[in-house]
Parts: sequence; C-alpha cells; structure tokens
Amino acid sequence: MGSFVLAADLGGTNLRTAIVADDGRIVHRIKRPTPGDAHAIAKAISDSSQECISAVKGSERPKALCIAVAATINPSEGILRNAPNLPFLNGFDLAAAVEAEIDIPTVADNDATLAAIGENWRGASRGYANTICVTLGTGVGGGLILNGEPYRGVDGTAGEIGHICVEPEGVECGCGSRGCLEQYASATAIVRIARELLTAFPGSELNGKESFDSRELFESSMRSDPLAVEAFQITSRYLGIAMAGLVNVLNPEMIVIGGGMAGAWEIMNDPVNREIRQRAFRTPAERVRLVAAKLGDDAGIFGAARVALLSRTQTSTTIV
Amino acid sequence: MGSFVLAADLGGTNLRTAIVADDGRIVHRIKRPTPGDAHAIAKAISDSSQECISAVKGSERPKALCIAVAATINPSEGILRNAPNLPFLNGFDLAAAVEAEIDIPTVADNDATLAAIGENWRGASRGYANTICVTLGTGVGGGLILNGEPYRGVDGTAGEIGHICVEPEGVECGCGSRGCLEQYASATAIVRIARELLTAFPGSELNGKESFDSRELFESSMRSDPLAVEAFQITSRYLGIAMAGLVNVLNPEMIVIGGGMAGAWEIMNDPVNREIRQRAFRTPAERVRLVAAKLGDDAGIFGAARVALLSRTQTSTTIV
Repeated sequence: MGSFVLAADLGGTNLRTAIVADDGRIVHRIKRPTPGDAHAIAKAISDSSQECISAVKGSERPKALCIAVAATINPSEGILRNAPNLPFLNGFDLAAAVEAEIDIPTVADNDATLAAIGENWRGASRGYANTICVTLGTGVGGGLILNGEPYRGVDGTAGEIGHICVEPEGVECGCGSRGCLEQYASATAIVRIARELLTAFPGSELNGKESFDSRELFESSMRSDPLAVEAFQITSRYLGIAMAGLVNVLNPEMIVIGGGMAGAWEIMNDPVNREIRQRAFRTPAERVRLVAAKLGDDAGIFGAARVALLSRTQTSTTIV
Repeated sequence: MGSFVLAADLGGTNLRTAIVADDGRIVHRIKRPTPGDAHAIAKAISDSSQECISAVKGSERPKALCIAVAATINPSEGILRNAPNLPFLNGFDLAAAVEAEIDIPTVADNDATLAAIGENWRGASRGYANTICVTLGTGVGGGLILNGEPYRGVDGTAGEIGHICVEPEGVECGCGSRGCLEQYASATAIVRIARELLTAFPGSELNGKESFDSRELFESSMRSDPLAVEAFQITSRYLGIAMAGLVNVLNPEMIVIGGGMAGAWEIMNDPVNREIRQRAFRTPAERVRLVAAKLGDDAGIFGAARVALLSRTQTSTTIV
C-alpha cells in the first residue's frame, strides 16, 4: 500500500481539501465554504483533513499537509502576506496554526506556484523542466518551473506575470501601476475591452445585452460576432506581447494557460502564437509550446500534494 | 601553489585572453585584434592561451578554457548561433576547434551570461543567489543567476532582456519586433532619443553640435542641460518599466547595471528606482537593489574563468 498526503486549496469562497496517494490519485475530497476569520480557517482545514483521513481506512497516517493560498509566503518564515481575497490572513502563520491542531507537518505555499507544480506533475507540462503557468481568471497569475524546480524568488513573490507592463500609459491597475497584462488579458479585462467596443460595432449581438461575461463573449466569438472576435484579438495581442518577453528572457519549453479564460484558448492560440513569433527571437519562439492547462481547478490541489509528498522525505531542495 | 584556468573574451573588435588563478587573480593577459574567419579565431585563441601559459612559469598546466562569445550556445551541443558581430561563426563549434589546437578542455558560453557569473563571483553581486545583470551598451543584453545558478533556458537563449517590449507600437528593432527595451535604453538609443528632442530644446548646448555620443550626453546632463536631462529621464523610465516587470516576475535581490551606460548610472539610479517602486509590488520592489557593475570589460573574463574553474572538478550542475 502506498503512502498518502493531505492537500488543501484555500480560495476566497471555498476551501477544498483532499487526501492524495503518492501516485497522484485523489482518494477522498471535501469542499466547504471558507470561514470568515483566520483561526476558523485553520480549524476548518484541520477538521477537513481529519475527515479525509477517516475516509481512508486502515492506511498509515499522512505525514504532510500543504495548503495553497493566494498570498505571498516567504519560504523561510511561513507568514502570509498580500492575501487579496482573505486580508485577515495577512501576518498569520496559517501552517503553524493548522499544524498545532492536527499534528501533521504543514506548509503553506502560493497557489499560482502550486498550480504550476501541479500541471508539471500530473498535467499539461509533465516532463518539461522549464515551464511557465499563466492563470487567466478574474486576475492574471503565474508560476514558474525553472531548471526543474519551482522558482519562488527571494521573498516568495516571483511569478507575478499579470503585472508585466504591456502598455506604459495604459489602464490603471489595482496593484498601483498601469498598463499591466492583467488589465488586458483577464476575464474581467476582456469584458471591459468588449464594452469599450460596443459603439464601434453597432451590429454586434452584444449590443442587445444588458451585461455579459467572458464566457458569453467566447460564445459570441465562436459565432463570429465581429465585436467579440475583435475583443479576443486585442486580448491575445497583449498576452502575446507579455509572453514574447518571457520567451526572450526565460527560453521556456512550455507555457501552460490556465484559469477560466483557458476555456477560450482554442480561439486565442493562433493570435497569441503569431504575436510571439513576430516579437521573440526565432530559436526560443520556435521552441516554446503554448497549451491549455489540463487540471482545471485541481491544479493547486495536485501541486500541494506534490509539495507535501516531497517534503516528507526530501533532504535536497529539489521539489519537482 | 594554486591552480589556473584560461579565459577568453571574443569581441567583434578584440580578442582578450587571460590566465586566471583560482582566487580570481588575473596573472597574465593578452589583447589582440579579432581575426576575420572562424579557423583563424580558433588559432588566435589557442596561440594567446599558449602565450599566457608560458608567462606563468613553473605552474601546472591549466586544465580548462572558457570562451565568452556574443552568441547563442546550446548547452548540450556547443555549436554557435546568432552571433551578430561575427556571423561567420554561426554553425561553428568554436570550443572543439580550439580544443583540437591546444589540448585543454574548452567550452564556449554566452558573454552576457558569463558577465552575470563574473559579477556574481568577483563583482557587484557577490553573495547573492538571485541576480540579474543588464548590459547597456550598443545594444542591451542580460544574464540571469537564479537559485544560485546561471539560468540559460532550454536552448541557451535566455536573458534577452533587451528585447522585452516596453512600447507595443514603438520603434522598430533589429530583432524584428518593435518597442524593445534596446530601442530606448542602449547607448545608441539615448542618442537617437536626444536627437529627436533637438527642436523641442532650442536652448540646449547639444543643438550646436554636429553629432554627439552617449558620453557627451551624460556630460551635458551633469551640466543640467535640459535636453540631456530629458533624454536620460525617458531612457530611465523605459528601463524602469522593464525592470519592474522583472522584479514582479523574478523577485531578484539585485540588478547589476553594466555596459557603457553604467558610467551614467549616478543620474539614472533615482528615476529608474522611482519607476520600479511605482510599478512593481511593494515587497519585491523594496527588496531589489540596483547597482552599477564593478568589473567593467573584465566581467566576461571573470565569468569565463569561473566556469572554467568549476568545470575542471565538478560533478554536479552547480556553476556559481
């Protein structure tokens, strides 16, 4: 019988916890609403973990738990910072609090980095040593695997691909800068871009709607609605500009596109690749493959499981 | 008595070769014009190396030679590609040709990566594990040290910081893209920017000149000439935009500024840092230190020596 670890993905809305076998099988999983304060969250993770353990009868006790959080976690201290969805976690050592409850070695790690690790372990970028995972959702996040290892930077803040500037005097961003990729390539951004195009495309089917989201925009684009097509062109162009920069700087083998917008990847693939080929050097542009993520919402769970699996036995710093 | 290695820096104009002790001391060095064909270059490197060896009487024979070249060298094959200054080297295995002459294990490596390694070993970024070296010369080059190791990417093309896009519809670049950092922050670029400003600054001392270079521009700026000041502001802003993106994506401890423009760093330091603080996330922006390079033209020689020193004995992949 193989061994097991616990993996949790703490979102702004839901907390998902799973017990995962060392071959990547999710044996049992639990989803519950995210509680409203730090200690209640620690308790909820601990309770969900116990429930997962009880569901796997007769197995050895999991020896590690890893928690995915949308926050900065300094690798050397464990304190959470810059948690935009759960600001009451800032300054809190979530892993220590959970570990005190459950008595299983626990770490917390950045959700975008864990998604990159997850896709690299069980998903789209399996077998590649230099990959970038870009999450196009409400915002734009990113995780890096370089030389076969997750790259977190000195403070654990690396991978903020959404805040590469793609338009120096562009749209103001919540981060304090302007013209960030997030303002042009997130699900939120493409809806804004489409709205700005309404008057220029009076014949568009979107003019009749009170409001629309990125999924409806995708569906309109699939019906060749000119406004929706144009909105995806604009978004794809800016995404291509940022990716071309990463291709020139990091010469990766693969860029994995995740998040809600990955559902529209089939119409973005060509224009994004075209922009990369126009802008990046030939050798790295021909090398890189852009693919849609495979693990969907589970990328963070798989990444957390991978970190937990390796943390139990490792003496080196190799994680992936 | 310590051991020695050979280091060569092959430029478009000059070939510089040195014998370097394992404590970083350059014991003897030779400079000669770069020959005009591939085999003559291999012979010149070999001859210079022999001359360096002869100059160090009684020491053991150097066990490795590393050659810095402005080219892409795929780590696994050694063939030179994309050598802009010495295009006849494309497709040539320079290291193998030199090794056949001199019978000392020889490798070739990218000059910008070696400059980053050199500064990390003996120069400005000593002791830091995550550093970026940006060379502002005729063009803009870059080298990365990540997690304590040189990062070259899958094909050895990583580090092309000069071709990050900072203005989507900007000035055309020799690389085929437009709006590249190189078109705004190289020594060549700031002269173009200044020329474009001449009519807007009729009172500038630069209006009286037939032509001027980046050094004269720097001197004018030190005398508070408004055109020169403005040109450095524009260049600094674009450099800051690109560096802010790297700070967000890579969360480095240090960015080392080298190349001819490093001589003007005292007037660029403040505006570049201001742009980074305005655009990058607070934690990585407060962490990163921007400093002028310390090794000047010798960064490549020191980097090559370091690679040669480690190649003699290493069994792991750790280079720095």
